[in-house]
This record gives sequence, structure tokens and C-alpha cells, in this order.
Amino acid sequence: MTEKAFQEHYPDEFANCYGCGRLNEHGLQIKSYWDGDETVCHFTPDSKYTGGFPGFLYGGMIASLIDCHGAATASAAKARAEGKPISRFVTASLKVDFRAPTPINTELTIRGKATEIKGRKVLVDLTLTACGKLCAEGSAVMVQIPDGPGPLPEKK
Amino acid sequence: MTEKAFQEHYPDEFANCYGCGRLNEHGLQIKSYWDGDETVCHFTPDSKYTGGFPGFLYGGMIASLIDCHGAATASAAKARAEGKPISRFVTASLKVDFRAPTPINTELTIRGKATEIKGRKVLVDLTLTACGKLCAEGSAVMVQIPDGPGPLPEKK
Repeated sequence: MTEKAFQEHYPDEFANCYGCGRLNEHGLQIKSYWDGDETVCHFTPDSKYTGGFPGFLYGGMIASLIDCHGAATASAAKARAEGKPISRFVTASLKVDFRAPTPINTELTIRGKATEIKGRKVLVDLTLTACGKLCAEGSAVMVQIPDGPGPLPEKK
Repeated sequence: MTEKAFQEHYPDEFANCYGCGRLNEHGLQIKSYWDGDETVCHFTPDSKYTGGFPGFLYGGMIASLIDCHGAATASAAKARAEGKPISRFVTASLKVDFRAPTPINTELTIRGKATEIKGRKVLVDLTLTACGKLCAEGSAVMVQIPDGPGPLPEKK
């Protein structure tokens, strides 16, 4: 893919997230792109992120990937809907259902779809698959950060 | 506290989780204990785990702490209810509501309470606070791994 990832468009002051910040040298630096009306992210976690069960990924990493790709999906969907540049979203609520063990040392595919855009709030549904097999499903409520690096608003 | 953490009782083959495995030298190695009828975990995340918003923790780490402490709470509650040794639980479903930004470089307190024990399934409610302020709430469905290191069952 030659287009820039959504995360490449994040303002510098919001680009340090451990999961998706391009400026966090210790982080995962996941990258998200459009694929038709859906979004897609491919990622192969390091084997140190093993879960309680040997050979499988830990749940926190699965939640992280769904969370960060969900925020990116909300950013891109809002930008596309309004014809504006990408802005930054944070998570208000995240739900992950673990459907099957997720292998480590395997490329994972995380897909997202914005199901509703309502003002600063975007709802996103997500899946995480390994070798075509569904391992986890997620849903998230994402909220757009107001312009500028002011204090983050409290969420209700 | 002088008692051993719940995670110290996990069988070696289930003690490599990035979040809570005592044998994962790269991991967070969180520790969970009883505090009356609740469970508690204190943890100060490294500053590399910053979120999209400067100075605050990334959502994936918050989900990880709630997830791993939730699994430990389920393990301990099941063991206490049955008068048996601690066994290992994995996550079937996790929900996290982010109520306020979570500061980095601050000790976090994660509290859990088992609200229902039904066979191999335990429901857990959780909170994450910083300096007494509620930052996130979680709820999880945890499932006990059958005895022995056989293949992890599919979850429906």
C-alpha cells in the first residue's frame, strides 16, 4: 500500500501512544488503512507478549490492538464523512469478546467499521483474525479530542 | 503485605503472561492480593506506555491491568469459595469504560470483586483509580482453564 497510514496524519503532540504513536520508539507503532468501507491493520506481535496459556497472545495486547485500530478507524471515518483532515480520537468505552486463542508469531489482521457518527462520537465494530480465523470481536465508543493540546475533557 | 500474590500460585506453564506472569522477564509482573472481600493490585506503569494524549496512560495498558487483575480475582475467588488451590483463568469477555484520563508516573490501584461464580465461569467487576480518583471501570467474564496444559478450549 502506498497511501499514508491514518496514524501518519496524527498531530505530533498526539503521536506518542504506545500502541499506535509513530513517535513512540518503544511502542507497537501499528498502522491502519482504508480497505473499501472498512479499515484494516496488519500486525505481528513480538513473542514476549505471550498470554497465560503458552503459545498464545495475552488478552491485553488483543485489547490494545482493537483499541488503537478502533481509534484510528473513528478518526478516518469522521474525516471522510466531513471531507476534513484526520483528527485524534480517544476511547470512551471498549468491549472485547475473546472467541478463540490468538496465536503468537503470526500476522494478525484487525478490521474496523464505523457504524455510527454522531457529533464528536463515533461507534466502531472490529474483528481480529489470524490466518482467516476469528479470534476476537470488539466494539468501541470513540470521542474526538477538541482542537489543540488543551486539557483532555472528562468523559461521562 | 507478607502473603504471596495470587500470581505466585499460578502453575509454571501458565506463568508467562506479559501482564501478570512471574516468569515473563519482559512483562509487567503485576501482583494481586486479597483486601477483605475485594482484591487489590498496585502498579506504576513505565512512562513509555503513554497514550495519545501527552502525560496520560494508553488505553491498552488500562485494559491490560483490568484484564490481568480480573483473571487473578476470578482465580482467587473460585479457590476461596471451594477451599481449593488457585487455578488459572482466561478472559472470555472484557469491557472497560474510561471515565477520566489516567496519569502516568503515578501509582494506580486496581480493585476487583467477584460478583458471580457459576461452574467454571466467574464474573468480576473492577475499578482503576489514581490518587483516589476513578479513572476506569471494568467488567469481565473469566473462564477456568481445565486441569493440565492441554489445548485451550474454544469459547462460545
